[in-house]
Amino acid sequence: GNVEAGKAKAAMCVACHGADGKAMIPTYPNLAGQNAPYLEAALRAYKNGERKGGQAAIMAGMAAALSDDDIANLAAYYASLK
Amino acid sequence: GNVEAGKAKAAMCVACHGADGKAMIPTYPNLAGQNAPYLEAALRAYKNGERKGGQAAIMAGMAAALSDDDIANLAAYYASLK
Repeated sequence: GNVEAGKAKAAMCVACHGADGKAMIPTYPNLAGQNAPYLEAALRAYKNGERKGGQAAIMAGMAAALSDDDIANLAAYYASLK
Repeated sequence: GNVEAGKAKAAMCVACHGADGKAMIPTYPNLAGQNAPYLEAALRAYKNGERKGGQAAIMAGMAAALSDDDIANLAAYYASLK
């Protein structure tokens, strides 16, 4: 994925996951430094309704708007953060 | 949670999540430095069958063996790793 494109796309994630990928509230996961393939699989599972539990309802809405490229770019961006 | 007790309990997690909380394969999440409340919520959601998607089936089996204290200790342990 493309980190720059992911950073631009991440504007809609900042409210919960923080500008630096450290979640705003501790019941949400930090994304900074997470494995890109895991992040991609998680976003796809939210998008296709496979993933349940936690904030799956919110995340399904977020992921619905994402293309495969968006997903790859977001995953690359958050994996690139320390 | 108690970090030392969590570390002892984490023996069963190492195979997939790594001895240092960095996942052995990139489609599994890193746990090092993750938020303890998120980890606790995730383990409880696996334990009660609420969380689906990804490796939920494997994780449900792992979590079934965990008490509330185990869950709190594991979460504290992984959150304490850098």
